[in-house]
Amino acid sequence: MGAPRPELLSLNTATVKQQWNLAQAIEGCARHGIRGISPWREQVAGMGLQKAAASIRAHGLSVSGLCRGGFFTAKDWREDNRRAIEEAHELGARCLVLVVGGLLAGSKDLSRSRQAVRDGIAEILPEARQAGVPLAIEPLHPMYAADRACVNTLAQALDLCDALGEGTGVAVDVYHVWWDPKLEEQIERARQRLLAYHICDWLVPTKDLLNDRGMMGDGVIDLARIRGWMERAGYTGAHEVEIFSEGWWARDPDEVLRTLKERHARAS
Amino acid sequence: MGAPRPELLSLNTATVKQQWNLAQAIEGCARHGIRGISPWREQVAGMGLQKAAASIRAHGLSVSGLCRGGFFTAKDWREDNRRAIEEAHELGARCLVLVVGGLLAGSKDLSRSRQAVRDGIAEILPEARQAGVPLAIEPLHPMYAADRACVNTLAQALDLCDALGEGTGVAVDVYHVWWDPKLEEQIERARQRLLAYHICDWLVPTKDLLNDRGMMGDGVIDLARIRGWMERAGYTGAHEVEIFSEGWWARDPDEVLRTLKERHARAS
Repeated sequence: MGAPRPELLSLNTATVKQQWNLAQAIEGCARHGIRGISPWREQVAGMGLQKAAASIRAHGLSVSGLCRGGFFTAKDWREDNRRAIEEAHELGARCLVLVVGGLLAGSKDLSRSRQAVRDGIAEILPEARQAGVPLAIEPLHPMYAADRACVNTLAQALDLCDALGEGTGVAVDVYHVWWDPKLEEQIERARQRLLAYHICDWLVPTKDLLNDRGMMGDGVIDLARIRGWMERAGYTGAHEVEIFSEGWWARDPDEVLRTLKERHARAS
Repeated sequence: MGAPRPELLSLNTATVKQQWNLAQAIEGCARHGIRGISPWREQVAGMGLQKAAASIRAHGLSVSGLCRGGFFTAKDWREDNRRAIEEAHELGARCLVLVVGGLLAGSKDLSRSRQAVRDGIAEILPEARQAGVPLAIEPLHPMYAADRACVNTLAQALDLCDALGEGTGVAVDVYHVWWDPKLEEQIERARQRLLAYHICDWLVPTKDLLNDRGMMGDGVIDLARIRGWMERAGYTGAHEVEIFSEGWWARDPDEVLRTLKERHARAS
């Protein structure tokens, strides 16, 4: 297994969200020879959907995913997810990433919250299929089970895919799943349902539950091994760098892009 | 399912470790009618093993567990675990809780680290059996996989028990496992291997990875439901309150004990 192909690199714009708006991130990718991008919806809205789509096309970038739909346990999830599907379609995104939401408001019932997630995805799935937008269920780290996503393992996400069928798949983010004793077997199980692959690193110590993710190579995740599992399972898509980090948000964004290119080649 | 029986309540001394030494914690339990205690080894050492054992006996307390053995991925684990087994025997502890340790030093190899854990437990198990000290493997929350314990689900801990056999079991701490989609089925699987049950709560938001655990009832864990699963699986042992919390460490320890008694009765 050699170094990863640089043309697979994609920038999740959260990585530089405090330095750049979407127009700047698009230009940054083009300037640094990064060929994929994964924007967040609020940034798309800030630029304007049509303008964002046109600029991404004009710069020759592919859209490895749109972040994000989901939050089925919150109010107004129907309309919000409908808009997200339309936007993903318009942007030509490889998938719409679903961060499914945590516990139902005021509830401690994980089981019922998980059922609500399943029902919510089932309800938007026909529109997603019609729009040709695969839904990528992203299992989030168990430390986010209460407030961000009650889907917390790849096995659980794939069980949902099994139940829901065509048009669903998974987003594998190493930050969320690297610890899972079943990771290798579940990646193998996922196969053609592997819609997205997000990379960063787990720092030791991790000082903040939300915004202390690491640059590839700065932490303890065996990224090359996990990439090997993804490749053996048939995944040929983007390697999307998504780093929520106060530290990296404080740096020159061109330095961030240079660094992630170098780390993608050397430590991913 | 009614309220939990108050005589099952046990105090893990970490809950008041910044206010009380072990002698004070023993007296506190007796004063508040708490009939179980689970001391940490450094506190036992501080008081002196014989003196601690005598005082616990004199106050009529049962020892729901000794915290802790393990850390098989660190140096000097053999001698340290041998001493821990002797101490657990001397204290008449229901079990020795094993926090197994994270990644091997300098390694990103979770698989090899997990193998080292299995080998380490296998090596100390004959002595534990001889001493009549059950080893309680405690799966820790995945956010501690790198630096504290690379056993992160109950299923994984039970697989270890299956492999290692008699004399091994598990400690179920709700803080570490509450999010697990497989929790109910794995508790059912564990049955007579359920050696310890630790309770506290998961706060939303959680502000610190280490020391922001909640008092029962202050967070989102459905404690009564999990207790029901434990009871149906045949667990009749202690309900051990273990709260690592800067907030509760800053309070009057008598208030902490009054509160945890009340919360055990009302919200566990």
